[in-house]
Amino acid sequence: MNTLETAPQAQPQQPQPEANGDASVQQRSVDWDNPRVSAILAAAAKCFARKGFSATTLAEIGKELGLRKSIVHYYFASKAALIHEVQSFTYHKYLDRVKEAVRATGEADPKQRMLSALRSLWDVMQNNKTATGLNIEVWSAARRDPELKRRAAALQHDARKLIGDGVTDVLGSRAADFPQMEALSSLILAVLNGLAVAEFLEGEDQAKTKDAYDAFLYLLRLGIRSMDGGAAPAKA
Amino acid sequence: MNTLETAPQAQPQQPQPEANGDASVQQRSVDWDNPRVSAILAAAAKCFARKGFSATTLAEIGKELGLRKSIVHYYFASKAALIHEVQSFTYHKYLDRVKEAVRATGEADPKQRMLSALRSLWDVMQNNKTATGLNIEVWSAARRDPELKRRAAALQHDARKLIGDGVTDVLGSRAADFPQMEALSSLILAVLNGLAVAEFLEGEDQAKTKDAYDAFLYLLRLGIRSMDGGAAPAKA
Repeated sequence: MNTLETAPQAQPQQPQPEANGDASVQQRSVDWDNPRVSAILAAAAKCFARKGFSATTLAEIGKELGLRKSIVHYYFASKAALIHEVQSFTYHKYLDRVKEAVRATGEADPKQRMLSALRSLWDVMQNNKTATGLNIEVWSAARRDPELKRRAAALQHDARKLIGDGVTDVLGSRAADFPQMEALSSLILAVLNGLAVAEFLEGEDQAKTKDAYDAFLYLLRLGIRSMDGGAAPAKA
Repeated sequence: MNTLETAPQAQPQQPQPEANGDASVQQRSVDWDNPRVSAILAAAAKCFARKGFSATTLAEIGKELGLRKSIVHYYFASKAALIHEVQSFTYHKYLDRVKEAVRATGEADPKQRMLSALRSLWDVMQNNKTATGLNIEVWSAARRDPELKRRAAALQHDARKLIGDGVTDVLGSRAADFPQMEALSSLILAVLNGLAVAEFLEGEDQAKTKDAYDAFLYLLRLGIRSMDGGAAPAKA
């Protein structure tokens, strides 16, 4: 699997991540700005999400792009290395879209901004079934691949931090009054993951998962109001 | 995989479910009361949760119990049939434990009973890592196995219904005032699934997922109080 004999002559610009190395998720060394690299990562995400890691070959991923398997090998030394990179790549793409969607709403009020952000998280997830399929595959494969599990845990941690920062932004100076910030971030992430699974299994009932998310946002608004000592909001 | 040449002479007492048949989850035909059948199902659940479906052989499952592969084959015509049955078996075992735990609390007040039930769902999940591992494997394999997906969706539906019945029990005559009953059930199930995934990935931080679940129960109590028009409950 490591033959590079038919690969292009030029050397990769940056070292590839080790399949089982201890490089942190932050210390990314694959050049996502290289159009060919990002095309391979996007094609791999699609194939992995559809068929799973073990049933997908590097040759199939190359075929999606009209590339020889050797070219895929040139950029990714092994399928394990590609899997790890696809996971980070897809996750960061997802977050980029969320950030863009939040910015696009241009909400000035922090509470409205938080609700916008939570709606954006949902909408982006709706339009990114590949990310859901890939997540499920990662969770499954993580049981057999400690490095994948470590990376998945690090991404969960990043996502929680991002959500926590967003909530802190809303609560402002009162954030200190709310000792359960981390718990709340974990909860929001769990709701997104859990509803993504439900929607994947019961695809025909998308309205149901949307209603469940709305019910969650309603409860969150109650939580925020209770801190203000205000009345309960109108039901969503 | 279908050879029964070394199997015992007696015929199975009941027809086996078809691997890709359209038998509903409700129309179960494998005898769970047969101690050998339930032992095989429990051993299979353990193996599948640990190693995944494709990496587990019927021979390994038999070995866990000191049984020849042919005996496992005698009860389950194929690995696919066994996978489908293990899924239902594990799920029903889980629900039985939850019901027992709720009954054991003996709460007379419906609201307390609901909170007890929600705590029991959590506690039983904590003590049943096999179910979490198996769930993740089922979600992953469901992309390649339509029958498994159909069954997983049916079990999700059952679980939501059970949760919904529990919530209706709490709300009593006011249940009609709460149009989002199904949404709430979906949300509770999603939180359990999402937190189970988080705990699986970040096993060392169990306190975090517990805190997240507590935050969710706090928000739910706020939701119930808001229907009563009462004040916010003390923070958990």
